Amino acid sequence: MPSVDPGFRELATGPNFAAFTVRLRSGRAMTHVMWVDATDQHVLINTEVHRDKFAAVERDPRVTVMVWLREDPYTYAEVRGRVVETVTGPEARAHIDALSWKYRGRAYDAASITSERVILRIAPEQQRSRRSGSG
Amino acid sequence: MPSVDPGFRELATGPNFAAFTVRLRSGRAMTHVMWVDATDQHVLINTEVHRDKFAAVERDPRVTVMVWLREDPYTYAEVRGRVVETVTGPEARAHIDALSWKYRGRAYDAASITSERVILRIAPEQQRSRRSGSG
Repeated sequence: MPSVDPGFRELATGPNFAAFTVRLRSGRAMTHVMWVDATDQHVLINTEVHRDKFAAVERDPRVTVMVWLREDPYTYAEVRGRVVETVTGPEARAHIDALSWKYRGRAYDAASITSERVILRIAPEQQRSRRSGSG
Repeated sequence: MPSVDPGFRELATGPNFAAFTVRLRSGRAMTHVMWVDATDQHVLINTEVHRDKFAAVERDPRVTVMVWLREDPYTYAEVRGRVVETVTGPEARAHIDALSWKYRGRAYDAASITSERVILRIAPEQQRSRRSGSG
């Protein structure tokens, strides 16, 4: 199984944002700005089970995640991959807290959870990155 | 024909970047960071005719453009639309200069043009926006 490229991992484990793209039933791509995380093997996106993007990945697990360096968007990395596992329960709840600490400097506001948090584990299939000034 | 939402237009005419998503032959979404522009009716992306993304929109004109506020990515807007026209020649060459002035404060470096510049005129079909703090 291919690993997540180090350049992507570095961007995704820092306080940088992702453009997360799923495919809607209509065949259109839907892109949202999301918090993001990565391990050696997977890109991680944390959403809720009632959301359109969760329904979309249940229908079609192929997703694209592009993460840019916050202070220099000319440096970015892209993973095209597949949601290979979804995780709910305490692990997903702890993970959204960890993301909230990374991005907001505080625990996640429990009152803003509408249904249930879910981690999408995304295995990379194609990867590409670009550094500022690389043409 | 629907207009470009004012919120998107404001972001896209400012010095903000876009995540531009096309569909590859494999069915995967490819997302690049791009300069962006908009008129009342169209989202404008300027690329070159030899690039994979131009080949992709010639095969499948459905694209998604998400533009975020550079200093606050929680504020962003998304257009799902269709490339309805492509424009090469002097107009495309002048447009990349205008974009370069907007983003870099100087004319576009002619030496970095490999083939020919082309403007993709994108008609919006679905639009969505989110402001920082809107939940």
